[in-house]
Amino acid sequence: MSGLNIFGVPGLPEIEPGADLPALVASAASEAGQPLQQGDVIVITSKIVSKAEGRTVELAEIEPSPFARRYAEQWEKEPAVIELVLREAKRIVRQVGPVLITETHHGFVCANSGIDQSSSGAHGRAVLLPEDPDASARRFRDRFKELGLDVVVIVSDTFGRPWREGQTDVAIGIAGMDPVTSYIGQVDPHGHEFRVQAVCSADELASAAELVKGNVSRVPVAVVRGLPWEADEDANMRSIIRESANDIFR
Amino acid sequence: MSGLNIFGVPGLPEIEPGADLPALVASAASEAGQPLQQGDVIVITSKIVSKAEGRTVELAEIEPSPFARRYAEQWEKEPAVIELVLREAKRIVRQVGPVLITETHHGFVCANSGIDQSSSGAHGRAVLLPEDPDASARRFRDRFKELGLDVVVIVSDTFGRPWREGQTDVAIGIAGMDPVTSYIGQVDPHGHEFRVQAVCSADELASAAELVKGNVSRVPVAVVRGLPWEADEDANMRSIIRESANDIFR
Repeated sequence: MSGLNIFGVPGLPEIEPGADLPALVASAASEAGQPLQQGDVIVITSKIVSKAEGRTVELAEIEPSPFARRYAEQWEKEPAVIELVLREAKRIVRQVGPVLITETHHGFVCANSGIDQSSSGAHGRAVLLPEDPDASARRFRDRFKELGLDVVVIVSDTFGRPWREGQTDVAIGIAGMDPVTSYIGQVDPHGHEFRVQAVCSADELASAAELVKGNVSRVPVAVVRGLPWEADEDANMRSIIRESANDIFR
Repeated sequence: MSGLNIFGVPGLPEIEPGADLPALVASAASEAGQPLQQGDVIVITSKIVSKAEGRTVELAEIEPSPFARRYAEQWEKEPAVIELVLREAKRIVRQVGPVLITETHHGFVCANSGIDQSSSGAHGRAVLLPEDPDASARRFRDRFKELGLDVVVIVSDTFGRPWREGQTDVAIGIAGMDPVTSYIGQVDPHGHEFRVQAVCSADELASAAELVKGNVSRVPVAVVRGLPWEADEDANMRSIIRESANDIFR
């Protein structure tokens, strides 16, 4: 019977700039008694990717613009954080009261450009999203291969969404497999095309991984085992960003 | 080590109105060699819930309104289906070209009021969403209890979302546990509140389940085993529908 096994990788150290994440993950998994295997999907929380890549900013070094300053004051936010949110944004999607939804330079739509002021290792720091999460995932996949492991790598983050309360984890970077499973052109036994035409499996994998990682338990990596996947070396998450022309919720 | 096991339940018969879904699922799982266990989370695709509840409509019996007729003609759609989409809608959220995003009577925002013309057992039929998916989940949970099984039940459907291509499975009904895991008020080791304040675990469970169900493989039920959950008999998915006043993407 086909099925998935999903487990967190505990015991990772505090991640420092330059850390070799794939080596750390592989060794932590082994020490936890569940060594990584060929074909695993490794889901890594973006925050530790950012930390490894030095995407951490000292707030004291940021000069907020007048706009950032005024907005921060109005809603009791940190001016330097608002400044960073604006710098990381390509476009403000909505700014309603204290809620600031932006489109990041990557094209992802999320709150506060995905900037995280928590768990940054010290007061007065913020963690930005990785510069290019697909490239990060690609580097990790290549590094895992050097370690003898052919695995899919997903970089995940926690995003809100319209209409529904509660956040869910989504994929912001991928390497190794197509993020989308397409049913286009397939028909059911009665000749109808399926209503569901393309499933974003990468986002579903990120969500599944969150269930074992949790956001407070300091388990920033999870393994999904048992998923059949075909290698696709050109796959990336940018491909699932809807083009402006097709986007009716700009 | 904590972890999840997720597997589909194969071998279910074609679902007829009045079908006893919990009994069918329990028996199919046993026959497949993976009997249900205490504490399992059972994720059931809404389509078979609708079929069991007789939420299937013969298109020939539907008289389309002039508006439905004109819109269907313009975009080469079936007038009776458009008529049903409008009848199942509380509000049209967006109508852009052939894309019709509605708010259902339940309050869910999705394409075509969640109506499915595929796999309906015959040509010329449509499957509507369950009338009250929380109530369906509640009935199933109670029925599973009669069968000796204390399980969470989630009714899932496949929804698109803004900004990102590809659909994902979400929960539209739940019984047994709170759909949201809250981190509000918790702080990290440095005293910062977490950026992630509430995760919609129910949606993540629905997404995780989709990974083993697939939409074409005719496995409409999946089991998530190993999730720790606290019983909450008042839980429902309506609670995650964002109130209009807080909804900046109306």
